[in-house]
Amino acid sequence: MKKNFKLVIEYDGTNYAGWQRQNNAITVQKILEEVLEKLTGRNINVIGCSRTDSGVHARGFICNFVTETTIPPSKIKYAINNLLPNDIVILDSSEVPINFHSRYNCIKKTYTYTILNREEPAAINRNYVYHFKRPLDIDLMKKGSEFLIGTHEFDSFRKIGSSVKTTTRTIYSIDIEKQEYYIKFNITGNGFLYNMVRIIVGTLLDVGVGKMTPESVKEILLAKDRSKAGMSLPAQGLCLEKIYY
Amino acid sequence: MKKNFKLVIEYDGTNYAGWQRQNNAITVQKILEEVLEKLTGRNINVIGCSRTDSGVHARGFICNFVTETTIPPSKIKYAINNLLPNDIVILDSSEVPINFHSRYNCIKKTYTYTILNREEPAAINRNYVYHFKRPLDIDLMKKGSEFLIGTHEFDSFRKIGSSVKTTTRTIYSIDIEKQEYYIKFNITGNGFLYNMVRIIVGTLLDVGVGKMTPESVKEILLAKDRSKAGMSLPAQGLCLEKIYY
Repeated sequence: MKKNFKLVIEYDGTNYAGWQRQNNAITVQKILEEVLEKLTGRNINVIGCSRTDSGVHARGFICNFVTETTIPPSKIKYAINNLLPNDIVILDSSEVPINFHSRYNCIKKTYTYTILNREEPAAINRNYVYHFKRPLDIDLMKKGSEFLIGTHEFDSFRKIGSSVKTTTRTIYSIDIEKQEYYIKFNITGNGFLYNMVRIIVGTLLDVGVGKMTPESVKEILLAKDRSKAGMSLPAQGLCLEKIYY
Repeated sequence: MKKNFKLVIEYDGTNYAGWQRQNNAITVQKILEEVLEKLTGRNINVIGCSRTDSGVHARGFICNFVTETTIPPSKIKYAINNLLPNDIVILDSSEVPINFHSRYNCIKKTYTYTILNREEPAAINRNYVYHFKRPLDIDLMKKGSEFLIGTHEFDSFRKIGSSVKTTTRTIYSIDIEKQEYYIKFNITGNGFLYNMVRIIVGTLLDVGVGKMTPESVKEILLAKDRSKAGMSLPAQGLCLEKIYY
């Protein structure tokens, strides 16, 4: 009998062209599907909760796949982990209702973006942070971030040319924490447009260095114009932390 | 005129056979001395505060070298960083008195050892932690660690065969912090025997899983017998944090 399996995955995105299968690129989906084919002898299509871009990391990526196998759902993670490279780890495996869809059923996502804020670049953790030299005023960034909370059309905060039915998204919270030289942005929303987290944090850095006021975040939002917002930061500071259903 | 330069170095030890120059191995000292030769046109012998083993990391390694150069001491770090690979970063450079010796003048050192304490291995941060599956009782480990504070002969906590004048060392503090799945041991002492930090933490893990009582740490210390203590943990969880002068 066919079962629907759900996996929770942690991966270091450094050496992958993101989650989604592509021609001529190594992606997490490709690696996982190859392992599942070895395990089950079947061609399995894994459904991911999200694309993630090249170089982006995940601590709580969710995917699901339907197959027939005699391996118990809670044990399949051990079998998969034995065959995966060491930068991808299955944290949990379970059986879910046959109609569970890891992308369509997602109601909320949390991403983090981590900055190393000091003059010198990172040696340790260099694949997990974005190095930003100039001093940042956390309070100004917090004030700026508050204008983004709620339901808005986020046209100014998405990559130009990305197609989507609606640009309306809800952001539930943006927390900004400083620990030694690290500043971590923790952003939860019901969904994110392409590059949205990276552009939001890029814009807040402009606020943090005093290049724009916290209030200008509101103006940028209302302008619905990508060119008004800050730069889209590099992938390596971004991590998909958690998916809510 | 000759000047004595002091550097503070952060490095990711993953791809190095430790600090100290060796034949047929890539070490941090070798890489740094090659860069300094390129910069100054001279053969420079860099004195490190400590050997560190293969795979061990550092956030605050100190070294010094004496040379003639017209590059200002505070600026030499930029010149060096431009030529270093991205897993070694000079955090600070300064001029120190000509008789300053980064090893002999050291009075105190802080190391950390980081455990990932969950069932599944690490994908993210996998080069910076030691994965330990079994649940650990932090309070028991704290109790056990208290017997090590103070001045003792640490024969039980050093690699057999390592030669040294005296096995007496003073440990000032051992702090154990848990943050999500990570447990970080923070150990400060006036000096450490070969593998001492890794054996101390290995022994505290035995206490943390209930394999031995906190009080047995005292017995192990008094036994002066390496075979009584726990295993020496792998290098990748260890980081030289700070050197005091």
